[in-house]
Amino acid sequence: MDGEQHQRLGSKRAKTMPEIKATRLSGSARKKSLSKWSSYSTVSWRIDAKKDYHYTLHTSLSQESHWCLRGWYEFQRWLLPALIGILTATCGAFIERSVELYGSLRFGYCPTNYLLTEEKCGGAWIRHAEQGQPYTMYVGVSCGLVLVAALLVRFVAPCARGSGIPEVKTILGGFTLDGVLSFKTLVTKIVGLGFSVGAGLSCGKEGPLVHIACCWSNCLSALAPRWRTNEAKRRELLSTAAAAGVSVAFGAPLGGVLFSFEEVSTMFPSRTMVLAFFAASVAALTLDWWNPTGTGKLTLFQTAYNTPPAYAEYIGFIILGIFGGLIGAVFVHYNIMVCAGRRKGTWWRNRVPEVFEVLLICFFTAVTSFPNRYTCVLSSATIRSLFHACYDASPSKPNMMGLCDGMEPRTDLALSASLLLAGLLRFVQMTFTFGAGVPAGLFVPCLFTGACLGRVVGLVAHSVNAMIPGSTIVVNPGVYAMVGAASVLGGVCRVTISLVVIMFELTDGLQMVVPFMCACLIAKFVGDYFTAGIYDCAIRLRGYPYLHEPDECAFHKSAEDVMDEDLEVLDCEEQTIGELLQTLRETVFSGFPLVRSARLRNRTLIGYIHKNQLLQHLEDKVKTSQLVSEGTRVSFRPPAGSHAEDLSGFVDSTVYRVVKEMPLKEVHEMFRKLGIKLIMVEEDGQLVGMITKKSFIDHVDEIERAEVEGTLERDFTGTFLQEPLLEKGESPSGKSPSRMSP
Amino acid sequence: MDGEQHQRLGSKRAKTMPEIKATRLSGSARKKSLSKWSSYSTVSWRIDAKKDYHYTLHTSLSQESHWCLRGWYEFQRWLLPALIGILTATCGAFIERSVELYGSLRFGYCPTNYLLTEEKCGGAWIRHAEQGQPYTMYVGVSCGLVLVAALLVRFVAPCARGSGIPEVKTILGGFTLDGVLSFKTLVTKIVGLGFSVGAGLSCGKEGPLVHIACCWSNCLSALAPRWRTNEAKRRELLSTAAAAGVSVAFGAPLGGVLFSFEEVSTMFPSRTMVLAFFAASVAALTLDWWNPTGTGKLTLFQTAYNTPPAYAEYIGFIILGIFGGLIGAVFVHYNIMVCAGRRKGTWWRNRVPEVFEVLLICFFTAVTSFPNRYTCVLSSATIRSLFHACYDASPSKPNMMGLCDGMEPRTDLALSASLLLAGLLRFVQMTFTFGAGVPAGLFVPCLFTGACLGRVVGLVAHSVNAMIPGSTIVVNPGVYAMVGAASVLGGVCRVTISLVVIMFELTDGLQMVVPFMCACLIAKFVGDYFTAGIYDCAIRLRGYPYLHEPDECAFHKSAEDVMDEDLEVLDCEEQTIGELLQTLRETVFSGFPLVRSARLRNRTLIGYIHKNQLLQHLEDKVKTSQLVSEGTRVSFRPPAGSHAEDLSGFVDSTVYRVVKEMPLKEVHEMFRKLGIKLIMVEEDGQLVGMITKKSFIDHVDEIERAEVEGTLERDFTGTFLQEPLLEKGESPSGKSPSRMSP
Repeated sequence: MDGEQHQRLGSKRAKTMPEIKATRLSGSARKKSLSKWSSYSTVSWRIDAKKDYHYTLHTSLSQESHWCLRGWYEFQRWLLPALIGILTATCGAFIERSVELYGSLRFGYCPTNYLLTEEKCGGAWIRHAEQGQPYTMYVGVSCGLVLVAALLVRFVAPCARGSGIPEVKTILGGFTLDGVLSFKTLVTKIVGLGFSVGAGLSCGKEGPLVHIACCWSNCLSALAPRWRTNEAKRRELLSTAAAAGVSVAFGAPLGGVLFSFEEVSTMFPSRTMVLAFFAASVAALTLDWWNPTGTGKLTLFQTAYNTPPAYAEYIGFIILGIFGGLIGAVFVHYNIMVCAGRRKGTWWRNRVPEVFEVLLICFFTAVTSFPNRYTCVLSSATIRSLFHACYDASPSKPNMMGLCDGMEPRTDLALSASLLLAGLLRFVQMTFTFGAGVPAGLFVPCLFTGACLGRVVGLVAHSVNAMIPGSTIVVNPGVYAMVGAASVLGGVCRVTISLVVIMFELTDGLQMVVPFMCACLIAKFVGDYFTAGIYDCAIRLRGYPYLHEPDECAFHKSAEDVMDEDLEVLDCEEQTIGELLQTLRETVFSGFPLVRSARLRNRTLIGYIHKNQLLQHLEDKVKTSQLVSEGTRVSFRPPAGSHAEDLSGFVDSTVYRVVKEMPLKEVHEMFRKLGIKLIMVEEDGQLVGMITKKSFIDHVDEIERAEVEGTLERDFTGTFLQEPLLEKGESPSGKSPSRMSP
Repeated sequence: MDGEQHQRLGSKRAKTMPEIKATRLSGSARKKSLSKWSSYSTVSWRIDAKKDYHYTLHTSLSQESHWCLRGWYEFQRWLLPALIGILTATCGAFIERSVELYGSLRFGYCPTNYLLTEEKCGGAWIRHAEQGQPYTMYVGVSCGLVLVAALLVRFVAPCARGSGIPEVKTILGGFTLDGVLSFKTLVTKIVGLGFSVGAGLSCGKEGPLVHIACCWSNCLSALAPRWRTNEAKRRELLSTAAAAGVSVAFGAPLGGVLFSFEEVSTMFPSRTMVLAFFAASVAALTLDWWNPTGTGKLTLFQTAYNTPPAYAEYIGFIILGIFGGLIGAVFVHYNIMVCAGRRKGTWWRNRVPEVFEVLLICFFTAVTSFPNRYTCVLSSATIRSLFHACYDASPSKPNMMGLCDGMEPRTDLALSASLLLAGLLRFVQMTFTFGAGVPAGLFVPCLFTGACLGRVVGLVAHSVNAMIPGSTIVVNPGVYAMVGAASVLGGVCRVTISLVVIMFELTDGLQMVVPFMCACLIAKFVGDYFTAGIYDCAIRLRGYPYLHEPDECAFHKSAEDVMDEDLEVLDCEEQTIGELLQTLRETVFSGFPLVRSARLRNRTLIGYIHKNQLLQHLEDKVKTSQLVSEGTRVSFRPPAGSHAEDLSGFVDSTVYRVVKEMPLKEVHEMFRKLGIKLIMVEEDGQLVGMITKKSFIDHVDEIERAEVEGTLERDFTGTFLQEPLLEKGESPSGKSPSRMSP
């Protein structure tokens, strides 16, 4: 087969249109490189790193530049993360205040100043209940608030919907998504988030804050030349911003750095970590200064459990871990199903406009939430009570919402039923809410569901413990609520270490670290058995290109199976600028491999040429230079002939090469770890194919889908993920392939 | 230059000894690949990963195997980390108990049972003071205890000396070091550590516990076939073990995972993180069960600061951060100087035997420590008091050692002087102790020094605050002690996020996270300005091969500058088994690049052949098979001739290739991130050179040393690091190069 293909390629090439120098290798009908993701462009870390080196060489590294300039460049590296931290924390404080205000407007208003919450208004506060219409007003105000958020998202910035984490992950994975990080999105998200969370929708502000931080990062980096032109540097700053976002969302600076490392970022060298660390600290300090919780502490759900749980209690934690994993998997399954059902072009979307759908969800949420005392108020207030201990006598003890009987927990069946109902309600609500057309995160609803479930398990454990004569164990149902919350969140997002750190910074529960660790691990395993994490599923559903960590089993496929054989190549033979320009203008590709000589069947790879750069250069040259015309000959190899235009500077000779036997797993590792855009495939020193990151993702998806066939996962979520929908307008089998048929 | 070299290589090759098929490319006198690290062997993650895949393919992945077997293989993955956690925690508890016992023996003894500490002995305890010789007994017992530790290390397992972290880092970086992780080292370290720490030497048990955990990991992996034969899998387990070690050392499971990630491991994919997480949890639970602190909590230095510090206090924290960085740099400088002065072959070592040196250090330590009340007792007791608040009225409040005046801190000058003296003493002691011939870590002495300094700064801040009329700030000197401890540790080790998590798990000071972060970052920057971290300097001093994170500025060098041009290659031309065997037996290299045909000047790279495998196969074949003799022809390419022996299975055709223009930084990233052993360098599809990981490290070191020349860092520590000493016996310019001269 080896020699056969060799010949076939050769003969084919020799015959095809000799007047066009961009020669096509192999005749297969489909040009794989132009995959369905042709509208996204890929970032090459290696090229950008080189660019940055040359940029800084003339400024900060050069000994000739003034020390002020060098100092300024070094300072910028720290200034940007600090600014991101400060701005994100300020936005976070603003959102927190607006959520409180809108949340309280559902119950009443302050006639002296409509911008005051119940707490600050004091005696003048008028409750809707006093006017006899609490339920109606609750539902009405909620729907009104959500309407504002939905209209903003629909007409100002559609990218501001949802949590934004799948988009941020994709961008950090090395692709560009237009508009996701624009200033318009930023403003819409900040304003809209207050409305959607304050309206009592089953959503949180945590994921969106990561998105907000990333928007700030993008907007700020547009101001600094070193970042503006360098996509890799911008991604470094985005990783930093993600840490600041979580730092603000949970008051958890450490958790932020780890979340950015574990869940969001693809590249996270130690230099980025130090910057992320810095941004998270600045964000935490700024948030502390704004003091949105009013307690003077960053800890959102301060608890006071000072003794580690007994060993017997681990039974309860393990059960919670298993439940958390199951709940997470069920959530992922149904949420993806719902989201798939409301994509553009579906039966539902054709009939129901997005804004109306959001209103429906809000109506349903408000109507079902009002009667239950735990779902009626904002989720965070309920979570605070659920986490807390009844025996705590400190002045900072929150309103325990009927969970306690004096200093003892209430254990009656009615309470358990009410809590379970609350958890179930929120679960159903969040299944519909996540992915709807408003800014909405899912951390808080997950914590809520888990906390309700955990508290119930805790009540059961408390009762069982009370029945054991002589038991010295003190069961705190609040501890179970915390573990339950961590489990459900772990089951939905499949994060481990960052979740434990976040939980522990949220609750100050150092003694709870080991239970958190156990529950998160178990939830992750149980969940992974059924589905992938919610963000990964959302990425697939929305059709974003994303390269996951390589699979253990990707050894039995090789580079040959995923490479594009049908290549247009340039060669080093004599040609004129005019011919070259024509080739460049006609192509649909963003670049060409350069080989020694297509005519002499010598496909020794010389390098790779990026189209836009070269086209720009040639057009400028022809216009401005008097010595160069369309008839001038060009040369791609260093000793340019006397009258030839030397284009060797445009040849990237260091492009990565592999042989076609290279296992898929290693190709995968190269793309992921080295941050490269394309790999050339050689055989016996001759170019035989090319793999771009996009076509690679495409093929890996195909291979995985083929392998998954028949297994549980496919039955569970595979059906919705079969054909990702492109939200960018064109259908995947649309324009691009037809332009490529020979 | 291009064409010139091309020709030179070609003509040279055609002439050299035609009877030996292993042809040498280029005639340069020095074979760079055989660098000074020829005694270490390199691990290739990619080859091991493939091996593991094929191994599991026949067991756990195969559908035919019994489910029991498949289950057992999956179970092993979890069993090993769990066992490592349990065993390490048990060792940690044992060491803690022995340290307490030995520590109290310096002050007295229990006549009823010599194995009881003062606390457990109760009234029967006899203090040496009662017999009139407390100082003499203190010094005598200390020296006696240290003597045991030193003799154990000297005569049983020399690898058990020091903290072991530089060795573990090197091993995880992909090299093998003999004996470092053996069972003998393990036992010596466990027993010796109790003696050296209990004797009051200025050292801690934290670093060595990481080493102990790694020894367990190595010993256990020898029992499981999947790990025994696979160096990459073993390294995965070692990363896991490092997390368990720190988890036990500080009672900090999260800090352990992060320390393993940030400081120790080179490869840390998310799969390893989950396992590390699991091992750390199991270790923490087991330690909790042993309850060595007697408090029922893992937190070693439990404090009770519940309010975040005021903004003005950050001035103090920043000062502490700067001091921490400076102290760290000074420590690294002098410690490396001391260690360099006592290496094998130096003036000092030729005159003073190692055991005697340790005794001298111990004598000096004991004599200077006794008079000061803070250095007289074990470091951890002093640290506990220094961290604690005077106003704390809880029953768990430790003996405050004269730091308080009732509920208020004492602020007199005598106390400050005494604390500063204690800190200085410990600093000088640890400079001599770290690297001496006993098991000794440096975390606790660093914490001690930093805590003393921090407490003094805190006392100053307290006095200043008292002088400001109307100040509402409450200054807790204990908070400064904590920040100071983190700063000095950060300045010495240059870790950031893991240190913050460890400090916070050590002290339960959630409100202190932001101050810790600031102090650690500042300490790292100040320290980095002067020297590298202690572990990196120790690695260089001891002459271990280690590949650091790539430098920003490695763009102006390329693969060409570091490649070995003088290669022995095999080619695909006709040869017999006898000829091949002779070549294999004669070579000093561990493998050969295989090219198309050396005679026809066709150096197209076919692949790479590992010597040992092939030699083994051929020798077996000649002995056992009747069809194969020394005269049989061999073929390296798939369609083997009718009578030729097919050796294509021994050719690794997927070896990585780069062109010679590839920037050094990218070559560096490939070695580090892909875990590979060698890279072939091509030019126009022809092999021109080879880079092995070892030769690469060698060259990077050389280049760095050349560049650093004249800068501050070189003046500061460079002089000691100029010529790393090989502790493995041979001198760097010894046997190897002479065997290679043509």
